[in-house]
Parts: sequence; C-alpha cells; structure tokens
Amino acid sequence: MNHPTPAAALARRPFPSALADALTSRFGDRFSTSNGVREHHGRDESPFPPALPDAVVFAHSTEEVAEVAKLCNAHGVPLIPYGAGSSLEGHLLAVAGGVSLDLSQMNRVLAVHPEDLTVTVQPGVTRKQLNQEIKDTGLFFPIDPGADASLGGMCATRASGTNAVRYGTMRENVLALTVVTADGRVIRTGTHARKSSAGYDLTRLFIGSEGTLGIITEVTVRLYPQPEAISAAVCAFPSMGDAVRATIQTIQLGVPVARVEFVDALAIRAINRHDNLTLPETPHLFFEFHGTEAGVREQAETVQEIVAEHGGQGFEWATRPEDRTRLWNARHTAYFAMLQLKPGCRAVTTDVCVPISRLADCVTETERDLNASSLPCPIVGHVGDGNFHVAILVDTSKPEEMAEAEDINRRIVERALSMGGTCTGEHGVGLHKIGFLVQEHGEDALDLMRAIKDALDPNHILNPGKIFSASR
Amino acid sequence: MNHPTPAAALARRPFPSALADALTSRFGDRFSTSNGVREHHGRDESPFPPALPDAVVFAHSTEEVAEVAKLCNAHGVPLIPYGAGSSLEGHLLAVAGGVSLDLSQMNRVLAVHPEDLTVTVQPGVTRKQLNQEIKDTGLFFPIDPGADASLGGMCATRASGTNAVRYGTMRENVLALTVVTADGRVIRTGTHARKSSAGYDLTRLFIGSEGTLGIITEVTVRLYPQPEAISAAVCAFPSMGDAVRATIQTIQLGVPVARVEFVDALAIRAINRHDNLTLPETPHLFFEFHGTEAGVREQAETVQEIVAEHGGQGFEWATRPEDRTRLWNARHTAYFAMLQLKPGCRAVTTDVCVPISRLADCVTETERDLNASSLPCPIVGHVGDGNFHVAILVDTSKPEEMAEAEDINRRIVERALSMGGTCTGEHGVGLHKIGFLVQEHGEDALDLMRAIKDALDPNHILNPGKIFSASR
Repeated sequence: MNHPTPAAALARRPFPSALADALTSRFGDRFSTSNGVREHHGRDESPFPPALPDAVVFAHSTEEVAEVAKLCNAHGVPLIPYGAGSSLEGHLLAVAGGVSLDLSQMNRVLAVHPEDLTVTVQPGVTRKQLNQEIKDTGLFFPIDPGADASLGGMCATRASGTNAVRYGTMRENVLALTVVTADGRVIRTGTHARKSSAGYDLTRLFIGSEGTLGIITEVTVRLYPQPEAISAAVCAFPSMGDAVRATIQTIQLGVPVARVEFVDALAIRAINRHDNLTLPETPHLFFEFHGTEAGVREQAETVQEIVAEHGGQGFEWATRPEDRTRLWNARHTAYFAMLQLKPGCRAVTTDVCVPISRLADCVTETERDLNASSLPCPIVGHVGDGNFHVAILVDTSKPEEMAEAEDINRRIVERALSMGGTCTGEHGVGLHKIGFLVQEHGEDALDLMRAIKDALDPNHILNPGKIFSASR
Repeated sequence: MNHPTPAAALARRPFPSALADALTSRFGDRFSTSNGVREHHGRDESPFPPALPDAVVFAHSTEEVAEVAKLCNAHGVPLIPYGAGSSLEGHLLAVAGGVSLDLSQMNRVLAVHPEDLTVTVQPGVTRKQLNQEIKDTGLFFPIDPGADASLGGMCATRASGTNAVRYGTMRENVLALTVVTADGRVIRTGTHARKSSAGYDLTRLFIGSEGTLGIITEVTVRLYPQPEAISAAVCAFPSMGDAVRATIQTIQLGVPVARVEFVDALAIRAINRHDNLTLPETPHLFFEFHGTEAGVREQAETVQEIVAEHGGQGFEWATRPEDRTRLWNARHTAYFAMLQLKPGCRAVTTDVCVPISRLADCVTETERDLNASSLPCPIVGHVGDGNFHVAILVDTSKPEEMAEAEDINRRIVERALSMGGTCTGEHGVGLHKIGFLVQEHGEDALDLMRAIKDALDPNHILNPGKIFSASR
C-alpha cells in the first residue's frame, strides 16, 4: 500500500486580486490576509507543518457563507471551513492555499426545543458552550470528543467520544443540517422529525465529509434527559488484556454503560502528573453509569462482578459530582497530559476501531509492538466501541522520530484492517489516512465516493487534498 | 404543489431480444417471462394497479446480480430489485418495464458474530427468519415493520417499526452492505467496526435509496442481547389526545420504553374481530419494557403513573410470553385486520412523522378531518417516534373513493410538513410521495439528490420512476 504523505503540498495558484477585492468590499476587516491570522488558520492539533491559506474570512451568517462559496467557486479558489481548530489529522491545513472560512463567530444557539429533545445551533457553537446554555432545560448533549470542538467540526469529522457507547456518535445524533453547497446554494437536509424515509440521506452524507462536499451552517441535534442518577467508577487491572476483556463482557451482557474508557499505565502516569492524582500506574478502566438510582446501582454491581472476574481491583465509586468531574476532566485532558510526558513534543495520534471480538488481540499485539519503540506511546480508548488511540510522542524536528511514528501508525492501521476494522473511528481521514482508504474500502467504493465529490463539487474547491489525494 | 400521480406509466421500450437471449442462456429457468411470474412481480401491498416487468430473474449470488446489472446497463433496460413484495408505496411496480430481479432465494444467514453482536445475511432473509435462526445465541434483531419483510428491502426503504423508539431504525442498525452498482461493480460499504470516520457514509446513502442507486446483496446488522426481563402493558384512554400526551411525557422523561404503540378505537375494533380479543373499543397504547427484572418493574411503574395522569385505565401487565406474543401479533397483523373492516378493500396508508411536540396537534387535527370522511380510516402509530399511519380503506374500482383517499393523504402530509415533519417516517417514497418531496426538501436539495442519482446510475436503469418523477 502507499505510505500516506502528510501535508503533501499542492500546486498553489496566485490568489486572484479580483476575488480579494470582492471579499474586501463585502467583508471589510472580516477579510484578512495578515500573517498572524493566516498562521492561526493554517494549522490544527496534528503534528503536520502548517500550510497557510491565502486569506481568512470570518462569516456571520449562512447567507455570507453562500456569498463566499459563490465567489470562490467562480474563481476556482479553495475554500476550507474552519471551526475550533481542534482536528487531529490535518483537516484544516490549506495545502492548496485559498480561503479559510472561519465559522467560530457563528456561535449562537438558535432554538432549543425541550419538548422534542432537540436543539438547533450555528456551527461555531462548541460542545461545552452548548451544554452550558441548555443546562436549565434538564437536557444534555452527550457527544464529547476530547477537545472543546465546534458542532460544525464534529459533524464534519463524524466525531464521537466517551459517551458514544451508550448514546451513539454524530452519525446517530444529527437530525438535520443547513448546508451551503460548493456553488453557494443553501439546502436543508432533513426535518425535525426523529426519523424519515423521504429520499436520500443527505444528512448522513455531509456528516463525516470533512468539508469536502458542502459547508455546514446550522446543525439540529438530539438531546437527552439528564439522568436521574450518575455514578462513576475507576478500577485498576493487572494487564491491558484483562481490562479489555472486562469491557467486552460488559458490552456483550448488554449493560447500558454510559462510558467505559481504557487508560494504559503510561497514560495514567501522565494524568497523575497533570491532574495531581494518585492512581496506581497500571492499566485502568473508567466507567460511568446513567439511569435511575436503582438502575445505576444495579449496573455498577454487575460491572463490579465482571471487573473482579478479570482481576480488576479497587473498584471505586464516585457519586459526588465534584469527584466525577475531576475524573472526567482528567480523561478529557489526557491528550494534553500525555504531551507533557515529552517536553516540546507533538502527538501522532492513531485512531483505529475494530470489532469488539478482536479488541483484546488488537490491543495486546499493539502493546507488544509499542514496547519495541523508542518513543513514548500512551494508549487510551473508547473501548466499549472497539476504538482506541495511541499517542505517539514525537519531536517533529527529528525525521527519524517522524518516520518511526508513521511506521507504528501504519502497522496499527494494517492490524486493525486485517481484523475487520477501520483506519479511523472518530478523527477522520484528513491528510493522514488517505493512503489507507483503498485498503479499507477497495478501489470501486472509493471511485463511488469520488463520483459523489465530482457531482457535488465539480470544481473541487471544497477542502481540496482531504479524504482524497489531490493528485488525481 | 403537484398532486402525486400514483403508478404513472412510463414509456416502455420493447425488451431487447439480445438481452432475453443472454439472460436465458445464463439463468435457464431462473429467467422467466411467464405471465404468472411477471404478475407476481408487478405489484406490492400498495393499492396501485399492477405494472408488470418484461421479465424476472431469480438470482442466487452477488456475482449473478452483478452479471444482470451489467447486461441491463449495457442495454439501458430498467432493473428493479425485488425482495418480499411487502412494500406499501409502489416501490416494486415496473412502471417502465424491464427486469424484476428477485432476491428472495438469496436467503442465507451468512455469518453470526455473537461476540460482536452482529450478523451478516443475504438480502432475501426476512426479519422473522433471522430471529428464528439466531434464537439460540441469546441475541435478537429488533427492527420489525408489520410485514415479514426482507432485510434487503428493509434497508432499501429505511424501515423501522415498533421497536425503533428504543433501538433505532435501519439507519442506525446497519454496519455494512455489499452493493452491486448500476454498472455491475461489487462494493463493500463499511467494515465490521461499530463506528468509523473513514470517508463518505456510503452505507447510509444506500439505506433508504429504494433500489435507485444500487442493489443490496449482503447486509451486516447489529444485534442486541435478549432482555433479561420483558413486560408488556395495554391501556385504554378516553381520547386520542390523552394517549398521545401520555406518550410524549414518557419520552420526555427519558423512560427507555422498548415499544409504545397507539391504536385508535376503530383499529381496536378491527383487532378484536380479527384476533378474537375483547379490548374496550377506545384509543389504546400498547407498551413494552425491556431490561432487568427490577428495571422493567421500575419503568412500568413510572409509565403507569403517567398513564393515570392522562386518564388511562386498565393498565394491564402481560409478563407471560404467550400473552405478550398474542398482543404483539395482534399489533403486527393490524394492517390485515383493518383491511377486513371493509371487504374487498385496499388501503391507502399514510406514514407521516412529526416532532413529538406537535404529535398531539397533528393526530387531533387529523382525527377531526377523518371524521368528515365517508371512508373507514383507522389509525395506528409508532407514537414514541412521532410516526403514525392512517389506513384509508378504499374500493380501488371506485375513482371517487381513490380521489377522496388521496385528498385525505395530501392533507395529512401537508399538515405534517407544516409542523416540521416528514411525508414518510418509514414506508419510503416509492411512487406515492414523489410529489411531496419538493415541499419537504426544497428544489435545491432535491437537485442534489438527483445529482447523486446521475453520478451513480447515469443510464437511470435502477428502479426508474421511484423517488424522482420519471418525467425529467
């Protein structure tokens, strides 16, 4: 297979002065070509070197987005939607230049429908902001990638996080989108009904399309009643395999756990340092249970038995909100905690997901592989879904470290694919997984994806070089 | 808006003799042009007059399906996948002639993966057959449209049924498909991993595409552990509004009901006659609860309180499997029971779905409308999803009854659309809802669907005249 080439630079064309003039006259100081602004928009949380856009536009409305799309399309200039900047696979890098369209100021919650358990937001609303704003409704939005990502970006990468095992991913939780097409038309995908069989599923087509098919300008998502009772538990295992096998049994028994997160010994060390905790430095599972008081107790008891069967120890309950918050904050900031294991490093983050029957094999073989590496490689995972991440900590200035990280990544992906899994469970393709898609989907399925891209964005202005190699 | 024209006949071209020769030599007596076979394949459960294909092929494998597709594509001849024949909106009618591709003999369960909670089947496997074959694994497949539909057909119409409120629809429960494209290529969409962000969601694009984008030849679906405990309950309400409001409150409180079905007084009368039951002839809700013994008891108690608040009476538990089976059999055969209210009739079945906050208004206004009709119009509904069906019982030989039924249908759909709902919750577009799609999606979103159709089936051989009008 082809080795993926991160951040392959594409041929850049000079930015048309007529376009610059049109955008300046329309957007005033919300159109910027300053170095600082461009640099901010030419990077994400990936370890790739920045690739700067020629200009940045800060949009305030769907209509403005449509105007920008029309202009860029007319000039054949790349257009890259930008939300919170937290993607991990190079999605935001302007590898062919063009306009970065910053949607972060489109950050209003437009309509809460508590009776329908839905909310409609602009794409720049972040997940934490959303939960803060709807707190008093008694409802919450469960999808929680580690970063405080924007809802638009979470749609674009088909994000999930720790709660997906119970509540699903963005795929299952978006009811409808407003999307601006490449040629600047505004469409609505879906209604506010919970289900529909009325034609092709455009909503799901845009979810996970990484800004390559259209620009998401409104999102309607499902909300859930805040559980009557929540409890969390942490327990330590003698080995990764034991922790994973306890997870598998929990899922197979149908225990409706809200969260089950794996954290390996090295990641625990990172968290202990970063969050001033004192967990034993062995593989752990973090659990959370949602339900009625009795239901939560019952789930926790069942899981406690399973955990004990697999050598788990110190099953500690945390029913006080402040203890739970501390625990989950530690999990959510694990990425940043892990970066501090190696000062000045960046992380090459792998993101495979396998059928749960193969998870123990996949994690155990991966652990064996990582033990031979000179790089620190902590592992965390949404193991209830069969999804885990290795953060390979690299000094990006050292080509040999980058090469080693890419080799590890390739081996992990190929191992997952050989087990019937996917190269990315939730981070998306971006620049980094392009080379694995043929192996995962086959040439004919990829051709079909390309046919859809050609149909919806014939001039290939939308986030070029992502998902598909730009060389075609 | 345009009034939908059911079963609009398209221009038919003579069936190419070269194609007939090729199919005969390849398929022998599995290629048929006999009247009886063509008549069987030119109808479904809709009230539309039959529209016969020119020929029928009975396929046994993905490779055979690919061969037929290549041949039909080369000759520009329509190709209509056929499963169990149970669709309700004219999906299977060969309005432009061509080949009906019968997949009912592709009915093997290919691989059960109990550890992963998944199963892979051929498209002709029916939902009842599947549950029978996997019974001993302790798992079950929850999606249950009224008919014993085929899994391939259920994918094609994005089917759901009574369990969708808890377990989701086909949209949420299909992991991967094998699909034959219009030009006879074989693709796999998705892996066996529970989630993925690796490119466009081809699986969801084919789910609900009604045979117009490709032919589904393998389906991998999620299974669920059979609940430790199940109980069902039936209760009678003074009015439709009361029953619906009890449902809404149940959903809003987050009670994880497995089923909550509305049955109006007329439908109860039909069921009583057909199934020899003695339920009071007033609006009812049928509930089912899945969980642990304690969990099920807790859910039932909560719902019992809600029901009482809304004037519900006679909350009767059925924990014995034979009582539950009797109850749900009655619900599942309600369609046929209702047909017997008017001997010799067919049903024009409406299928709207609205945001649950509007459900009480929608059902109550619909009831008022139906009271003015001369036709019997029983109502049943998957009200936990906001989805309900009116079976408008017509003598298809009487044009005035057909016209009245279509008028009622149009008013119900327009009412639902005006409330933020959809024209079809689970039956699909077929021939019958084409005229409502512009109103629901807007011209630009429909154009985008057409662009996808053109990209994937440039010769428009796949199930022509469905979803989109054939006049373009």
